[in-house]
Amino acid sequence: MRIQKDDLTHIATGAAFLGTGGGGDPYIGRLLAMNAVEQFGMPSVIDADALPDNAQIFTIAMLGVPTVLGEKAACGDDVDLAVKRLEQRLGRKPDALMGIEIGGINSLLPVMAAARLGLPLVDADGMGRAFPELQMTTFNVGGVSCTPLAMTDDHLTSVVVDAGNAKSAEDLVRLASVHLGCSVVLSSYPMSGRDLKRTAVKGTLTLARDIGQAIARGRQQGDPVQVLVDYLRTTPYYNQCRILFDGKVRDIRREMKLGFSIGHCEMTALDNPGSVMEISFQNEHLIARLDGRVKALVPDLICLVDRETGEPVPVDGLKYGQRLKVLATSAAPIMRTREALAMFGPQAFGLEEPFVPLEDIED
Amino acid sequence: MRIQKDDLTHIATGAAFLGTGGGGDPYIGRLLAMNAVEQFGMPSVIDADALPDNAQIFTIAMLGVPTVLGEKAACGDDVDLAVKRLEQRLGRKPDALMGIEIGGINSLLPVMAAARLGLPLVDADGMGRAFPELQMTTFNVGGVSCTPLAMTDDHLTSVVVDAGNAKSAEDLVRLASVHLGCSVVLSSYPMSGRDLKRTAVKGTLTLARDIGQAIARGRQQGDPVQVLVDYLRTTPYYNQCRILFDGKVRDIRREMKLGFSIGHCEMTALDNPGSVMEISFQNEHLIARLDGRVKALVPDLICLVDRETGEPVPVDGLKYGQRLKVLATSAAPIMRTREALAMFGPQAFGLEEPFVPLEDIED
Repeated sequence: MRIQKDDLTHIATGAAFLGTGGGGDPYIGRLLAMNAVEQFGMPSVIDADALPDNAQIFTIAMLGVPTVLGEKAACGDDVDLAVKRLEQRLGRKPDALMGIEIGGINSLLPVMAAARLGLPLVDADGMGRAFPELQMTTFNVGGVSCTPLAMTDDHLTSVVVDAGNAKSAEDLVRLASVHLGCSVVLSSYPMSGRDLKRTAVKGTLTLARDIGQAIARGRQQGDPVQVLVDYLRTTPYYNQCRILFDGKVRDIRREMKLGFSIGHCEMTALDNPGSVMEISFQNEHLIARLDGRVKALVPDLICLVDRETGEPVPVDGLKYGQRLKVLATSAAPIMRTREALAMFGPQAFGLEEPFVPLEDIED
Repeated sequence: MRIQKDDLTHIATGAAFLGTGGGGDPYIGRLLAMNAVEQFGMPSVIDADALPDNAQIFTIAMLGVPTVLGEKAACGDDVDLAVKRLEQRLGRKPDALMGIEIGGINSLLPVMAAARLGLPLVDADGMGRAFPELQMTTFNVGGVSCTPLAMTDDHLTSVVVDAGNAKSAEDLVRLASVHLGCSVVLSSYPMSGRDLKRTAVKGTLTLARDIGQAIARGRQQGDPVQVLVDYLRTTPYYNQCRILFDGKVRDIRREMKLGFSIGHCEMTALDNPGSVMEISFQNEHLIARLDGRVKALVPDLICLVDRETGEPVPVDGLKYGQRLKVLATSAAPIMRTREALAMFGPQAFGLEEPFVPLEDIED
């Protein structure tokens, strides 16, 4: 399979949706990917199931505060260096690259990396959405080690970490990322083809593209949000899909804390100003409450889109007065197991509410 | 040259003196070294000037908060791993090891490391004393890069850093060390024999031993502090030597801040309770003021010793009521150049007072 240049725009839009508010600005990711593709050519994209068991795959991603990622994006040499340092540590070159998440900038950074390094890109990731922390992957749930990993910055500082577990690696990397300016490139979770096929959320690059295409098609047809919802209901993972709210932003609180963008957004309904939707986030949206009642919970996806254009709005793009629709969809089944919920369910984010699948919550 | 088992005790005492209050408890260093020497044999010690120009030398040290270093010392595997990770990064094994400083635990940790790894130990270091930060070495003053470096902890976490300069490496390593429990093993400043001969403070392991021997000899002769002072006056670096004060501790304030032990100690004179000596420290003693007048300044050495036994007292061993003598000695000439003072003179520690050599201060 090959992706086309036009696909990059659709992937960016789809990944902004799947980023559920986080993952960094996909517009930046698209520019990075476009630039690399023009210079180095489009990388080939391969299905996860086509990988030999003994293939070596590295993930590649940016990590940091979303607001900063958009202002201080990867320069290219930092991407090459992260892969090179991990190669050096392992004594083995990767046969392919893969995204760690399919949200925001990290959907397209792997396209940039694969183009630069002449490597194929695997159509899969470790979240099927975006999450704020490094241990929150299906790879980790499946016992794949997060380390060795290599992180780099635009001054070509590099830090190679071996840690006992992914949470410990996350803590170290987060600390270092703040010191390095809240925006770093990370090559982590080196794994075999066998482990990838066992643990990854598959086909998500294609899904991101198709979500972006659905929104574009909807714009031509006049109701992008409805066309998007109709498309999502045909997908393997995001098929439980609801429009939770139609309203405008009346309050938005964000702070950069411990290297994250943490806060919440309040909206009032357009047709009933007394009805209030509150959404809390840590880089990504975690929980949506309508008049105090929980309507959707992480790891299910909570996505804010412009009510007219269907354009996904990231956390750092939220503004007072914006008119948005709040969508929620189911997460991939592999992300709703007990083990997965322990890693990135509501309690992993300090929430008290137990996870209830979207389809089991009263509409 | 070979050091003997008895020498380890003398080196520990001498290094506690040269540690000027910091560098971690040399008693722990002695136990670590003794243990390794019993198991692996005594390493050979070589003169810096005997090294071939193209030899590869790594430094080895512990880094962290002195109080913690004494409670959570290197386990051995962490030492081996730090050297191994640096080897891997460079693609070259070291021909010899060297201490980064000759203060406290870091005088004898290299003996442990050299014994374990079957490598010779160079009779030299990068400070001729102890300093709290990684960039504060004569290696760095001489343009030797601090990185690549490898740090490890007792859980065998490893972090390999390449940074643009030693201060940036220090900041990263310090952050990570706090996360890893304020006690890590560090192999850094990989350098050639040529660079070592050009930049190191030479002969300091032997000097530490001889200082320890002088104190021991003084105890037999009845006046260890005087015998120590007499010996120091014969050394190449520490020959300007004064007893600044003879008193007892009346106040001691210490806090752990940013991974350092920071504070000050006040003493009153035994023969004149109105006369007050105040010493400020950041792991190591930085400045000694007698009734408000500066009597000695970093990088010259300020050392507190028991007034009866001559035993050096580290910062974390200071207690109310202790009767101590305060000694000051000159630092090695290589440490008093303008470039060196910029790196570890008073201003590098936030002090306002300009450096004045001990011998130029009114007695």
